[in-house]
Amino acid sequence: MQTLIGTKKGYIYHLEINRPQQLNTMSSQLFQDFKAVVDIINKTDDIRVVILTGRGKHFCAGLDLKEAPQMFQLPDELDQARKSIRSYDKIKDWQLAMNSLSRIKAPVIVGIQGYCLGGGIDLITSADIRYCTEDAKFSIKEIDIGMAADIGTLQRLGLQNSNASLFRELTYTGRIFNSQEALSLGLINKIVKNDQLNDEIFKLAELIASKSPVACYTIKNIVTRESNLDSQLDVMARTNMALFFTNDMSSAITAFLTKGKPEFPKL
Amino acid sequence: MQTLIGTKKGYIYHLEINRPQQLNTMSSQLFQDFKAVVDIINKTDDIRVVILTGRGKHFCAGLDLKEAPQMFQLPDELDQARKSIRSYDKIKDWQLAMNSLSRIKAPVIVGIQGYCLGGGIDLITSADIRYCTEDAKFSIKEIDIGMAADIGTLQRLGLQNSNASLFRELTYTGRIFNSQEALSLGLINKIVKNDQLNDEIFKLAELIASKSPVACYTIKNIVTRESNLDSQLDVMARTNMALFFTNDMSSAITAFLTKGKPEFPKL
Amino acid sequence: MQTLIGTKKGYIYHLEINRPQQLNTMSSQLFQDFKAVVDIINKTDDIRVVILTGRGKHFCAGLDLKEAPQMFQLPDELDQARKSIRSYDKIKDWQLAMNSLSRIKAPVIVGIQGYCLGGGIDLITSADIRYCTEDAKFSIKEIDIGMAADIGTLQRLGLQNSNASLFRELTYTGRIFNSQEALSLGLINKIVKNDQLNDEIFKLAELIASKSPVACYTIKNIVTRESNLDSQLDVMARTNMALFFTNDMSSAITAFLTKGKPEFPKL
Amino acid sequence: MQTLIGTKKGYIYHLEINRPQQLNTMSSQLFQDFKAVVDIINKTDDIRVVILTGRGKHFCAGLDLKEAPQMFQLPDELDQARKSIRSYDKIKDWQLAMNSLSRIKAPVIVGIQGYCLGGGIDLITSADIRYCTEDAKFSIKEIDIGMAADIGTLQRLGLQNSNASLFRELTYTGRIFNSQEALSLGLINKIVKNDQLNDEIFKLAELIASKSPVACYTIKNIVTRESNLDSQLDVMARTNMALFFTNDMSSAITAFLTKGKPEFPKL
Amino acid sequence: MQTLIGTKKGYIYHLEINRPQQLNTMSSQLFQDFKAVVDIINKTDDIRVVILTGRGKHFCAGLDLKEAPQMFQLPDELDQARKSIRSYDKIKDWQLAMNSLSRIKAPVIVGIQGYCLGGGIDLITSADIRYCTEDAKFSIKEIDIGMAADIGTLQRLGLQNSNASLFRELTYTGRIFNSQEALSLGLINKIVKNDQLNDEIFKLAELIASKSPVACYTIKNIVTRESNLDSQLDVMARTNMALFFTNDMSSAITAFLTKGKPEFPKL
Amino acid sequence: MQTLIGTKKGYIYHLEINRPQQLNTMSSQLFQDFKAVVDIINKTDDIRVVILTGRGKHFCAGLDLKEAPQMFQLPDELDQARKSIRSYDKIKDWQLAMNSLSRIKAPVIVGIQGYCLGGGIDLITSADIRYCTEDAKFSIKEIDIGMAADIGTLQRLGLQNSNASLFRELTYTGRIFNSQEALSLGLINKIVKNDQLNDEIFKLAELIASKSPVACYTIKNIVTRESNLDSQLDVMARTNMALFFTNDMSSAITAFLTKGKPEFPKL
Repeated sequence: MQTLIGTKKGYIYHLEINRPQQLNTMSSQLFQDFKAVVDIINKTDDIRVVILTGRGKHFCAGLDLKEAPQMFQLPDELDQARKSIRSYDKIKDWQLAMNSLSRIKAPVIVGIQGYCLGGGIDLITSADIRYCTEDAKFSIKEIDIGMAADIGTLQRLGLQNSNASLFRELTYTGRIFNSQEALSLGLINKIVKNDQLNDEIFKLAELIASKSPVACYTIKNIVTRESNLDSQLDVMARTNMALFFTNDMSSAITAFLTKGKPEFPKL
Repeated sequence: MQTLIGTKKGYIYHLEINRPQQLNTMSSQLFQDFKAVVDIINKTDDIRVVILTGRGKHFCAGLDLKEAPQMFQLPDELDQARKSIRSYDKIKDWQLAMNSLSRIKAPVIVGIQGYCLGGGIDLITSADIRYCTEDAKFSIKEIDIGMAADIGTLQRLGLQNSNASLFRELTYTGRIFNSQEALSLGLINKIVKNDQLNDEIFKLAELIASKSPVACYTIKNIVTRESNLDSQLDVMARTNMALFFTNDMSSAITAFLTKGKPEFPKL
Repeated sequence: MQTLIGTKKGYIYHLEINRPQQLNTMSSQLFQDFKAVVDIINKTDDIRVVILTGRGKHFCAGLDLKEAPQMFQLPDELDQARKSIRSYDKIKDWQLAMNSLSRIKAPVIVGIQGYCLGGGIDLITSADIRYCTEDAKFSIKEIDIGMAADIGTLQRLGLQNSNASLFRELTYTGRIFNSQEALSLGLINKIVKNDQLNDEIFKLAELIASKSPVACYTIKNIVTRESNLDSQLDVMARTNMALFFTNDMSSAITAFLTKGKPEFPKL
Repeated sequence: MQTLIGTKKGYIYHLEINRPQQLNTMSSQLFQDFKAVVDIINKTDDIRVVILTGRGKHFCAGLDLKEAPQMFQLPDELDQARKSIRSYDKIKDWQLAMNSLSRIKAPVIVGIQGYCLGGGIDLITSADIRYCTEDAKFSIKEIDIGMAADIGTLQRLGLQNSNASLFRELTYTGRIFNSQEALSLGLINKIVKNDQLNDEIFKLAELIASKSPVACYTIKNIVTRESNLDSQLDVMARTNMALFFTNDMSSAITAFLTKGKPEFPKL
Repeated sequence: MQTLIGTKKGYIYHLEINRPQQLNTMSSQLFQDFKAVVDIINKTDDIRVVILTGRGKHFCAGLDLKEAPQMFQLPDELDQARKSIRSYDKIKDWQLAMNSLSRIKAPVIVGIQGYCLGGGIDLITSADIRYCTEDAKFSIKEIDIGMAADIGTLQRLGLQNSNASLFRELTYTGRIFNSQEALSLGLINKIVKNDQLNDEIFKLAELIASKSPVACYTIKNIVTRESNLDSQLDVMARTNMALFFTNDMSSAITAFLTKGKPEFPKL
Repeated sequence: MQTLIGTKKGYIYHLEINRPQQLNTMSSQLFQDFKAVVDIINKTDDIRVVILTGRGKHFCAGLDLKEAPQMFQLPDELDQARKSIRSYDKIKDWQLAMNSLSRIKAPVIVGIQGYCLGGGIDLITSADIRYCTEDAKFSIKEIDIGMAADIGTLQRLGLQNSNASLFRELTYTGRIFNSQEALSLGLINKIVKNDQLNDEIFKLAELIASKSPVACYTIKNIVTRESNLDSQLDVMARTNMALFFTNDMSSAITAFLTKGKPEFPKL
């Protein structure tokens, strides 16, 4: 694993996103590493709790936009249907990667500081427990590059949140929201002082690690069984395999990079 | 449309309920107009956001009780089964009307002031985003005329709210609740000063209108896909096509009009 | 009924758990009594609201651990498969007992004071409306005896709560939480002063009893229709019919009784 | 049990409908007996297979029309809603009775001779395996008394049959169909000579009784888990609690008894 | 209605596809007419059964390929996402048209002679009862123009047929199958002599018309309630809104018209 | 791949089970190879159809009983819960292997001769199209080793078959059934002469290979989307993780090997 660091401390496995220079943005490699880490953890004896944090000042600033263009570049000779089939496979693969935390058999605690944007939110919604620091900043940012969040946020957070009206405002606007709003949305359940994040989540992890691992396994096995989630994720992939091919996305990215204002044609 | 006024301002379509003398209560005509407006909006180019407000002091005081009796009046020669089939069709038709906001392809923002009672709540739960003023007053009022809310509230709000216990208290008692309780229930997500409602929702609408309409379309298309909602609405219609024919309703309405206390026989 | 006291006061039926010496813990008898009371209430004319409270200082301190060992004792000559089939039947029977409040046709209000632990939470989640006193203390305590809550909490509270992250923290840790956290979790919807619990819930009951019983019946009939709940409860029973047979449970119980620290082998 | 005879022969339990004078029609007592027999069988050690047959020349000629009128007679002072609630309870109770064969843990084999009409088909569709004699005669006869089959046939046979077009023809017309059509519909899977029915089903029962009861239990437990059946049965009960109150039913019954032709008003 | 003829004969409504010169192929107008006829029939008093047949030698030879190209022609300036959204709307509209027979409240009997190809099969699968003549010829022909059947066949026939292996062979190959195979597939349930089709279906219609219309309404209302059908149709529309834009389709159509052999590039 | 041979012939990929000495029974290696072949095929350009056959006289005689004991041997020091968790993982892994044919994007045709027993039936039910020879012999044989078929047959064949009564007879008895019964059950759709199997399936494969691969991809993608299959397979795994640990299995295997008669204790 090139983008993740894993350290076992007793019954606790500490997983860290390790691209601090890139604000822990998500590259192709990082998607691969998240898929790989599931097997590593599930096959290691005696891991009872997993902690996920990000090295550096920010938890995760979303998709690595430098890599994004080539991720979806497809040979020109393909017709639209063939492009769509390949996009579908790609989206499903990313959904699988973002799903990793829920496939880990032990409970997963995430500690968030600084930015948690776009794909960062997809990622944490598949964890069990989420704490953040006072200065954490969140955004369901996909709208700003002309697309809908399609690797978990609309589905998981859509099912978990406590205020549908607020949730939709955040998805349509992509605006930044702070730790207090994240708490009232039900996205996180504890706000801690900036320098106490590690202490708090390790204390919680130790408490859980002292409990029966059979009981923890059973709880997670049942509570993550969101019966319609799979089909919702699939519908999202089917929808975006077509809707990805919009000029809005390049307009939005260009505007974003040039700090201009994007123009979009009618539907 | 006789009961609604629609005004296009750039990318924003402003829809207003226009029966201020009748506290914007819902008449047969208003149900028809809501069904009609979906096509008008979806076929108009360049509408990216819809705003719904009510003219006058109140957003909507629920069903027009003056019209209600004749709405459900059925020929005496029909036996009970035939009456039930016709009631079922009528309830389904009203459910369709109340569903209108979710069939509009663009995001819909509702701004609520004054009373929002009974059918008014059915209506706003099918919108995307809900803001209200400090003095807004809500009530799931159907219980007070001896019936269960059957055109959306029990289903939509039942799925969206953040406190099942509070939600049931409100449906069983029909008591008035204010903007603060509406916020904690997850029914609305922002309370604004009384004279700033329009400013706030237009500012929000403009922000959303500046985003990619393909992305907004996709988000709405996915997040409104509540897979069991249709079947829940149908079960409600099947249930009430029979339970509508109770004397409790006339007792309750009479008591309401004469400010007396209704008496109900045992089940 | 040996463990429950029922008193009819006008349209209101007051049901009290009556094992104050045992902190109202749940015995085999209590499970039987809860199943029996459904028929008693549903067949009594003119009951429009049910109130459930616990006699003594505590609402309910969970399973009666003194009885628990023999509840699951099975003949040694049975192989594991046969033991599992019998455990499955037992768990289903307990789930049915805990489901009793939702099978009562009239709305059920619960008033909670003191401890509400383990099975106590399973029980109240099948009620309609929950109030508690300021000093109420809750815990999803099953984890502390090495098992997952399998008679309703993970399923019902899992669907109803407003913060998935907090909910999971509570199930994994079994820690005590107070009335304020119960409110923010959406488990209860009103905190009242310690000496006003009865007054408040009777006032609420009287308000509901003044409404149309047909309308109340219909509302309850619809809002308790959580379509996937049955299958989720069944999956839980299937899972625990096997996972019950763990040494973690006896280690945990021994540690609990001797105030020692339990040791658990790897998965 | 007054209407059923049960005889245990080794691992096989032989259950016989014993109202040959009344063509084994279904009375209130018979519904009660079918509910009761489930417990008797499930609690008897060493029953591995159940056989169900009818004494006399016919398996079961459906509902006992002599008793039917009083079964649904309700006090005149009840309004329609209250009548519907009581009808719903009655239909659910009958559905539960007809469901009995699928709640028995051991496989159930049915042997059918002579008439199997109306409720008789509801009953056999909840068994595991169905054989009939060459001269067996079937009819989904409910249409002839002006109602839809509402205690299992439309749901179970609707899911199991192999020709939706034939199935609907039979439900709309109520016409008699013979053993060969029953075979092609997938309702039964073997036609035997008239005097060999008992031999054949006992031979089959002995074969099954020689297999592992754990394996048989598991198979039945899984294959009868038709996930949407419960909700379909419930929708049927909700629908007919209203549609039962039609004059078509009395017209149809009168015409049937006087061999006249019923007249039905328009919908 | 320009493409359909409707004649009321007593309680029976006879609907005929009237484009014999074009082999009753499906034009835009025909889709509109099928949507319109639902209201006409449901609002006419005293219609108890509907019969659908095709004028001329063939029942329906599928989509009108002459019209097809312009049906899906979209402005060049639209990007792929916008084209997909419009295609989705078009497919949903066609699905609604093909769904018409199941929205008619009375039972619908279809009589098929000659060719029943492509869209013709989509259409008849939404009827209640299907008879055909000895010389009828069927084909799930969509594969031959490079697309998957997306307006009902894969969903409805996929749920109704009795041999999944045969069904898939027919969808992948598009080969012609005769009345005997249609019978064994469960697509039709009676084969009649060529000159007796009308007699047979009218005789059946008259039998059904003599039954209680309340009972028929209830049966149809329940048996057409295929709970996952809507979501399956929607997934199909989402999938094909992208996969429609393939060169395979034009290659296939060209080859078909020139009787050549189409070449398809790899996926 | 040690147990499978794959040969690409134009657009057709021919996959052969290659353990003729062991009657093509399923070993651990074979499960691995089936999982591996999905990627190989899906990543190879230009495969449009897959054919699966077995080398030697028999298609597949089920699980390799010589290997079976050690497959489920678990360390004695594990308690029952831990054994169950590991069994669950193993069953899920086998279900995944048996699912392989449905994850291949191209249509899969299976040709069956000689024995197709136990796991062999699990395997073929995940294919698209099944042909067999006149002398093919089938058995849902799991019952004979004291267990329920848990890697696909009860679920897939349970959904696909045309006669629920016959299907259950076959699962409870494990008796051999021939090609004709397999046809009437809907398990296969064509019986061919013993020496023409290869010719027939290659002819069919070539026909399918001449069609648009986009259309074939789309059809398979839709028709294999059996929405409840995943959850049914999971329930089976949860059930058998406990019920596997029965003495019936060893009694049955011993009796089978010594040609004796197994004795089973009561439930």
